[in-house]
Amino acid sequence: MITKVVPELQRYFVPSENWIDEQVYVTGDDAHHVTRVMRLKTGNEIICNHPDGQAAICTITSMNADEVRAEIKEWMDTSNESPVSVTIVQALAKGDKFELVLQKGTELGASAFIPLKAERSVVVWDDKKAEKKMARYSKILKEASEQCHRNKIPQLHPAMAIKELMEQSQSFERKLFAYEEEAKTDAFQTFAQSVARFKPGDHVLIVIGPEGGFSENEANVMKQEGFAPVRLGPRILRTETAAMYALASISYHFEEMGCE
Amino acid sequence: MITKVVPELQRYFVPSENWIDEQVYVTGDDAHHVTRVMRLKTGNEIICNHPDGQAAICTITSMNADEVRAEIKEWMDTSNESPVSVTIVQALAKGDKFELVLQKGTELGASAFIPLKAERSVVVWDDKKAEKKMARYSKILKEASEQCHRNKIPQLHPAMAIKELMEQSQSFERKLFAYEEEAKTDAFQTFAQSVARFKPGDHVLIVIGPEGGFSENEANVMKQEGFAPVRLGPRILRTETAAMYALASISYHFEEMGCE
Repeated sequence: MITKVVPELQRYFVPSENWIDEQVYVTGDDAHHVTRVMRLKTGNEIICNHPDGQAAICTITSMNADEVRAEIKEWMDTSNESPVSVTIVQALAKGDKFELVLQKGTELGASAFIPLKAERSVVVWDDKKAEKKMARYSKILKEASEQCHRNKIPQLHPAMAIKELMEQSQSFERKLFAYEEEAKTDAFQTFAQSVARFKPGDHVLIVIGPEGGFSENEANVMKQEGFAPVRLGPRILRTETAAMYALASISYHFEEMGCE
Repeated sequence: MITKVVPELQRYFVPSENWIDEQVYVTGDDAHHVTRVMRLKTGNEIICNHPDGQAAICTITSMNADEVRAEIKEWMDTSNESPVSVTIVQALAKGDKFELVLQKGTELGASAFIPLKAERSVVVWDDKKAEKKMARYSKILKEASEQCHRNKIPQLHPAMAIKELMEQSQSFERKLFAYEEEAKTDAFQTFAQSVARFKPGDHVLIVIGPEGGFSENEANVMKQEGFAPVRLGPRILRTETAAMYALASISYHFEEMGCE
């Protein structure tokens, strides 16, 4: 629960090299945002977020069009980060669904995203456009993080196929995949049972399939690697809604019910 | 838990006047969908949903371009409807946010939607376009209901201001509004505490403010009428994300945790 009321100051994520002793240097687009969009002046306060997750209230001491210099006034002790670190693996899907997952997933507390080249993904990402695409996605993550008062910007990993995902998954304590086929049998473990086993600090991986679902091969590979199939409520969710359901439920469980 | 595996048949919501004895008449766009999009034939099966929430597996007995005639084979005993009836009151917001709330809210189990003309809503709905707009929204609700296997299409009410909403709210057992200002004090009741008090069959009203939040007047009026202010997780959600958080959490609580 938030007990200390913090004024609604604008937040900026500042790379670590721009923190020098008690000075913080806000540059580039963010400097433009401070001076031109927010029209702040010397003496005004902003919140600067360090990539390590800490945040400080800073007082602007000087500015020009390219750089805003601010002095750390006070480190903040509030954190809006989820006690459970959830990485959403989202199969590539049509249209702007991935962007919606990034934006809403950031608001709902995801700590990282991995685009999955699933066997039934009908879209294929063009490698030539990858750099441009990743730049746009990074911007969505940064803006959503600032807007919803995150302490950290979620990480975005490069797209990978199921084999590479299985290698990456070794470092996660909890691994789930949304698989309604399995959920129709009596053998499955409910999503709530899985969530109840999460411990604060756990790294959780949740894999969401494409519009056509996982292939049998993908489902088998995940099961062999210890991924638990779960259903996310009784209705059939669209691929981009599944991540939101999972993240909202985990937030509800740990941040509103206060289960630990 | 679903114990009976139902084949993935296409679903259609059929108005009550098209159910005559054991015959169901699928007409208009839906007939086109059966014959041209799904390319079904006589003898194939579809699921027909009655407006009362019941659904039947039906066998197609004849068809032409305008009408598909089917015979009831078997009434289904599964329901994907939430045990708690949640009405989302969504303040008018910019862009296509309301459409997103309708589509995702349907998947996440909402039973009705009320557009709210909030004091700080920056968009005003043009009454001349209201009919066209409502037709488009109804289509979104119907398609989302079919896609996610709802038994009932959520209701869409006409837009209203806070005063009319207070009159309408009399028939609801539980009334909440998302109000982060209140949530920063120690006096508020958590969202999870509120949800834990819901009983199956309850009618719940959840009011979500516009981008600029509720006015002080609106907040006071709701508090006087017995609405509980709640926060929806520690991060600042965009207006269109708030309804998703609330609905996913309620589904998780009642449909996955199985709390009653």
